[in-house]
Amino acid sequence: MVERFVLHVVKIGGNAVDNPSTLASILAAIAKMQEGVILVHGGGGEATTLARRLGLEPVMVEGRRITDAAMLDVVVMVYAGLINKRIVASFAAHGVTAIGLSGPDGDLITASKRTKSKVKYGYVGDITAVDVALLESFLDSGLLPVIAPITHDGKGQLLNTNADTIAAAIASAFARDYRVLLHLCFDQPGVCLVPGDESSVLPVLDAARFRELSASGVITSGMLPKLENGFAALAAGVDSVRLLHADAFASFVAHESEAGTELVE
Amino acid sequence: MVERFVLHVVKIGGNAVDNPSTLASILAAIAKMQEGVILVHGGGGEATTLARRLGLEPVMVEGRRITDAAMLDVVVMVYAGLINKRIVASFAAHGVTAIGLSGPDGDLITASKRTKSKVKYGYVGDITAVDVALLESFLDSGLLPVIAPITHDGKGQLLNTNADTIAAAIASAFARDYRVLLHLCFDQPGVCLVPGDESSVLPVLDAARFRELSASGVITSGMLPKLENGFAALAAGVDSVRLLHADAFASFVAHESEAGTELVE
Repeated sequence: MVERFVLHVVKIGGNAVDNPSTLASILAAIAKMQEGVILVHGGGGEATTLARRLGLEPVMVEGRRITDAAMLDVVVMVYAGLINKRIVASFAAHGVTAIGLSGPDGDLITASKRTKSKVKYGYVGDITAVDVALLESFLDSGLLPVIAPITHDGKGQLLNTNADTIAAAIASAFARDYRVLLHLCFDQPGVCLVPGDESSVLPVLDAARFRELSASGVITSGMLPKLENGFAALAAGVDSVRLLHADAFASFVAHESEAGTELVE
Repeated sequence: MVERFVLHVVKIGGNAVDNPSTLASILAAIAKMQEGVILVHGGGGEATTLARRLGLEPVMVEGRRITDAAMLDVVVMVYAGLINKRIVASFAAHGVTAIGLSGPDGDLITASKRTKSKVKYGYVGDITAVDVALLESFLDSGLLPVIAPITHDGKGQLLNTNADTIAAAIASAFARDYRVLLHLCFDQPGVCLVPGDESSVLPVLDAARFRELSASGVITSGMLPKLENGFAALAAGVDSVRLLHADAFASFVAHESEAGTELVE
């Protein structure tokens, strides 16, 4: 059997994006990794903060942001502008040449506006295609792709797409030819049986148990999209999917400690 | 003599960025061009509008924006986020696959923070290097680079750099190996002897006349950086430098009409 190249798809959001020292520790850890890495970021709290300063009240439904035209401008500014360029510039300080990308760049991620839904999400896009060859060309050139959760419909419209969904879609798109490890970093130590109680973290979670825990309400609505994305990536052939605390990422990828919850089929 | 490849460096700002129909006409015209194009954009009025909504009062000195930390966030959001991604997404509607870039992306444009100046400009960068090979690789892949006027110092700091300066620096960097035409689009019909009077446009302006007109105050301070950048590009070997109204760009590049002011040495 031919040894496949290893690709790590790392997703960060929340505190990892908002807190400079957490972000720096993650970028430093990525800089030391010897294998291919693609970083996907969310917007942390900054989009919400900016929206409020502009008099827009953010509305979330089941962990997803309702995006009207004014909110789309805010997320494009914060995700594709401020956060994306900050991360790319910070990578340079760690000796890594990164390239910041959103869905329209090089037609990287196309999506269609979500219309058949009970909830009116607004300018929210469901991914229809990821250009793996484009990302490969960057990786081959020694550029680390840093991807903001903005997509486009190919007809001129920008769309907002959940960062976990983008990370899972990219990991899945690479799974045919690469050994892909998807790391979903967030602000909890893993999937907990008791919310916030680190001692109740499940080291492993399979799909049957996931269904059981969602039915019984142990896994709450905010966690559902993240876990659904994770299991979808597994089903698409991604080799490893792990939810872990952003603060645990550095020591985990340095093989110094176990961390978080590994999803298994 | 070997025929050199032709590269058009097009700079847009002001109304061309703010007004959707002007922008659409420029993108449509670029989509029809058979030769290489790099588009550099400013931020139009949106950075100023957003700054005011956030309670920040923009300060301009000699056509250049004073950029404190809060204003840097605003210009990164508006230039590298909103405007850049809007343009890239709009190009897709014209059948052009573009890639939005800022200085930190792929370490495209490095700059040093301006310190030796009478005016305290804040986070303003003077360009130290442009990665021509990276831009060439995009052009060779059929990707049209769309460049926001944000640079970085290579040590983690984003910087604000004038878009005319970036356009001139990119044109100059390509001049050794390409036949380069620099088109500086703006909101006036060219260099006018009487401000706003189209009949007073100079079809041609040479460096000696430029010095004369600046000394006598006919060319005002807001125009100085644009013209200095244009003459610097000529001196660096750029083949053609033209200042023209954004509305005249489409018919000019379609060879349907003359437009604006051509700078000559």
